[in-house]
Amino acid sequence: MTDVEHMKWWGWGVDGVGFHHEDKPGFAPFVLNAVGLDLATAEQAQQPAFDGLTLADPVAPAAFVAALAGIVGEDHVTTDAMERVVHTYGKSLRDLVRIRSNRIARAVDVVVYPADEAEVQKVVDAAVAQDAVLIPFGGGSNIAGSLEPIPGETRTVVSLDMGRMNRVLDIDTDSGLARIEAGALGPHLEAQLAAQGWTIGHFPDSFTHSTIGGWAATRSSGMQSDKYGDIAQIVRGIRVVRPSHDDRDGVLVIPAIPSASTGPSVREMIVGSEGRLGVITEITAQVHRVAELREIQAYFFPNWEAGLAAMQAISESDASPIITRVSDSRETGFSMATSKERHGMDAVLAEKVLPSIMRSKGWTLEDICLSFIGFEGSAQHVARQKKLVGAIVKKHGGMGVGTGPGVLYDQKKFDTPYLRDFLLDRGAAGDVSETAAPWSKLLPVYNAVVAAANAAYDEIGTKGWIMCHLSHSYHSGACLYFTFAFVGGEDMLAEYDVVKSAIQQAFVDNGGTISHHHGVGVEHSPWIEQDISPEGVAVMRGLFSAVDPGENFNPGKVVPASRERVS
Amino acid sequence: MTDVEHMKWWGWGVDGVGFHHEDKPGFAPFVLNAVGLDLATAEQAQQPAFDGLTLADPVAPAAFVAALAGIVGEDHVTTDAMERVVHTYGKSLRDLVRIRSNRIARAVDVVVYPADEAEVQKVVDAAVAQDAVLIPFGGGSNIAGSLEPIPGETRTVVSLDMGRMNRVLDIDTDSGLARIEAGALGPHLEAQLAAQGWTIGHFPDSFTHSTIGGWAATRSSGMQSDKYGDIAQIVRGIRVVRPSHDDRDGVLVIPAIPSASTGPSVREMIVGSEGRLGVITEITAQVHRVAELREIQAYFFPNWEAGLAAMQAISESDASPIITRVSDSRETGFSMATSKERHGMDAVLAEKVLPSIMRSKGWTLEDICLSFIGFEGSAQHVARQKKLVGAIVKKHGGMGVGTGPGVLYDQKKFDTPYLRDFLLDRGAAGDVSETAAPWSKLLPVYNAVVAAANAAYDEIGTKGWIMCHLSHSYHSGACLYFTFAFVGGEDMLAEYDVVKSAIQQAFVDNGGTISHHHGVGVEHSPWIEQDISPEGVAVMRGLFSAVDPGENFNPGKVVPASRERVS
Repeated sequence: MTDVEHMKWWGWGVDGVGFHHEDKPGFAPFVLNAVGLDLATAEQAQQPAFDGLTLADPVAPAAFVAALAGIVGEDHVTTDAMERVVHTYGKSLRDLVRIRSNRIARAVDVVVYPADEAEVQKVVDAAVAQDAVLIPFGGGSNIAGSLEPIPGETRTVVSLDMGRMNRVLDIDTDSGLARIEAGALGPHLEAQLAAQGWTIGHFPDSFTHSTIGGWAATRSSGMQSDKYGDIAQIVRGIRVVRPSHDDRDGVLVIPAIPSASTGPSVREMIVGSEGRLGVITEITAQVHRVAELREIQAYFFPNWEAGLAAMQAISESDASPIITRVSDSRETGFSMATSKERHGMDAVLAEKVLPSIMRSKGWTLEDICLSFIGFEGSAQHVARQKKLVGAIVKKHGGMGVGTGPGVLYDQKKFDTPYLRDFLLDRGAAGDVSETAAPWSKLLPVYNAVVAAANAAYDEIGTKGWIMCHLSHSYHSGACLYFTFAFVGGEDMLAEYDVVKSAIQQAFVDNGGTISHHHGVGVEHSPWIEQDISPEGVAVMRGLFSAVDPGENFNPGKVVPASRERVS
Repeated sequence: MTDVEHMKWWGWGVDGVGFHHEDKPGFAPFVLNAVGLDLATAEQAQQPAFDGLTLADPVAPAAFVAALAGIVGEDHVTTDAMERVVHTYGKSLRDLVRIRSNRIARAVDVVVYPADEAEVQKVVDAAVAQDAVLIPFGGGSNIAGSLEPIPGETRTVVSLDMGRMNRVLDIDTDSGLARIEAGALGPHLEAQLAAQGWTIGHFPDSFTHSTIGGWAATRSSGMQSDKYGDIAQIVRGIRVVRPSHDDRDGVLVIPAIPSASTGPSVREMIVGSEGRLGVITEITAQVHRVAELREIQAYFFPNWEAGLAAMQAISESDASPIITRVSDSRETGFSMATSKERHGMDAVLAEKVLPSIMRSKGWTLEDICLSFIGFEGSAQHVARQKKLVGAIVKKHGGMGVGTGPGVLYDQKKFDTPYLRDFLLDRGAAGDVSETAAPWSKLLPVYNAVVAAANAAYDEIGTKGWIMCHLSHSYHSGACLYFTFAFVGGEDMLAEYDVVKSAIQQAFVDNGGTISHHHGVGVEHSPWIEQDISPEGVAVMRGLFSAVDPGENFNPGKVVPASRERVS
């Protein structure tokens, strides 16, 4: 069979790796205080048994499966139960809860692994001829419900796994442009680029288990977007397979042009389309030479308002950092609590000297906010940027504490998703919701979201937690990224809906968007009319219906499928 | 009547202003050498007489015109002949030649001037109910044929002039976002912003006679785009009036969010839509505080290749200039030829000392290329940027000559369009074509375009001229902006087609786009399938047909109208 590797069918990441807190003495007290969960006594769930899953037989007509095998080869098409389960969901809390509790609504039927674009074209044509549904699959890290078939779908659902198409095809070193197959996972494509001295500079939290095709399809943003841009900026050229015609194939080709005035941007229609316009097979991405120097400096601010104001001032200044990030006081507490035990001088500095300095400044330790700001370039450039940023931090009452915490941040940055499984094992739900808003609205959005989450916790009668950081600064605003958690009751998903809905509603009610970089899927589509207006959705729906009249391409995502089909 | 002012009906700019060369001693010899036109003996055409124009009666049913008057007021709807002519064309060479030679194919029938968005909504609904055609009109500076009705259009064509909607409504000073009505002309909106210390930073060549709505509708780019971005970056929020529904109005509202992952970008569908998706009424634009210091430095390079290489190196460096521009040797010669006569020390420096220095460096004076690079920010920032850029220029064999020429450039930058009328008065055609391409393809595109233009001149048997500059640098490439001219024969437009087509074809054949910032209209649509692929055009056409099934919104632009309608 195919050698494409996948994450655990029941959780994040690779088998044998998980979050643990034995070396983090502050973690258990923190969790007890935050959500009332006593890790010392909490019952720990067993890893779910795959054999216990109830899976309907696949809707997979033998002739159609044989036709697919004729295209990609017998070894690269399967209706195997494990393959079907792995390809049915992403890794949202809703996905994980359902899979752990044997509630698979509608699994995909067939999984195919094409080797190249020509095979994708044949699979697309065969699927449309069969009136099947096609759902492209990258790394499976999506948390917006973008991968799941519509419940009640009666047609054959094909998951098109792009994992075999994972090469960096070439690098145009004059232009800083690399042609990359859509199925390349973050670490794999970055290694291919790094071997020649280049980087894509795109590092979302999902980096280790997501693909460039998935990044483009969901409008991903990486933690260094201040320098490298969101994926919409990084993607210059794109190839998308759509149904072929009598007289030509269906490959849509947007050339890698730095900027063009060629009408409404088809490139920007494909970016974010979550499979609804066709199958992304190749991307020509902006890549950069690996910088001479890279530094992440840590700073503390006396409070959240000061931290936000400093980030805003940096965005307005002549400085050009690669990362701007500041955590609210609760997330700062969380960061402290997940630190490894300190020894010797480290412990003295972190636990005695630093707090003492802060107290001497009149700070309230419960209010302090940790910030990371990153710099890249020549040594001279980095030094100058640090100086510019340092002055702004100082002006806003903050203080620098050097690169130590930043090094830890860089090492741990992709580990957070493991924490969700750890909490779920112990009956607690944890998830994330992010938004972006103009600078003037960030604090109102923040306050409204925290209030809405706390009201939701009251409503469901639980002790809940919500924390936040600002990241991804732009000229006119920034992203606010919220993490929330609570100990679930009898129906954790119903409770989750109350909290998640309250947060999303607070976003749109206060001038934020429903998603800065996680996409829409089915998780956020209930709010899309409130975000881009009913007429904006009508235009988008017009596009989908015109270019996919049979609703063969991942129907029901971004905006619900047409009423005729889903009754 | 309405007090919205327009450009000359027969040419660029305001009455009484035109290009003249009495104070530019190098100009006449230059023109003689370039295109064989002797300005001393050339016959000069009289200004065309408006009374001589043949204009068909308007297709304007009295009841419909009365209905429009009921919406916008009697004073703001007209079928006056001059108003109709002014609103039928932009200012392309094709437009000017036709209007000068009494060849108006299909004039608009009615011109309306709405006062606000509510009136636009009523006009849109009335027009759709009447099955009329609506063409939004900003400053009328378009040179891609985006404003002209389809020849043979039998329905009433309404030109919707946005000139009364010209206010900056408010500035969110925390976020650097200004709400601006779509009909605001460049100087007027910039003055409103400047009064509060802000700038939009968007300065296309058409600035003095184009509107922010027009910039958005055609994907404009300004000469400081290196810092401020193209209009697609500047436009964050947008309001567009579309037909209303039984249960709601038709106002599409994209909120001003710095970045969002809300599916295919509807904002990026509207930007560049040239009126085909509705009427843009308001834009929330990124604005910036006016910089402490602004400087444009001039440099010379020994040749074009060195200039291009230096611009590429700057784009890859830590430097962040606001303008990067370098002219080829022919455009450098043109710049010299349009300089005013120098006196005293100025003359000695420019005409003796500088050439002498260049010769001592081994340069061939016919090959030298003039470059402008702009800087903005604090004094310290500007100094640092100049140092970074200076080192790169030096490394590529160039030399700085200070701010003198840059000051002249800044003063003259909006005057070039007047030159076209001057040439037309004397029987010569002059026009521009611009593209963008990856850095690796700029020189091949340039060489191919120059060869194609010269082959076209040979074909039509005339002495022609073509010159070019690079501007608008991006990470992965830049814009090449070509200006070409020739003395026309019996059928100047047929000859123009030969040259213009050769240039456009050379763009797409060599990896460039058909337009970097002039839009598509009808002038560039013959090449759009070769640019974004037939499937890309099919997707765009699907969007248009789905959201404008009656083809009421500026049909025939960007992609030809559907075959059913245009036979």
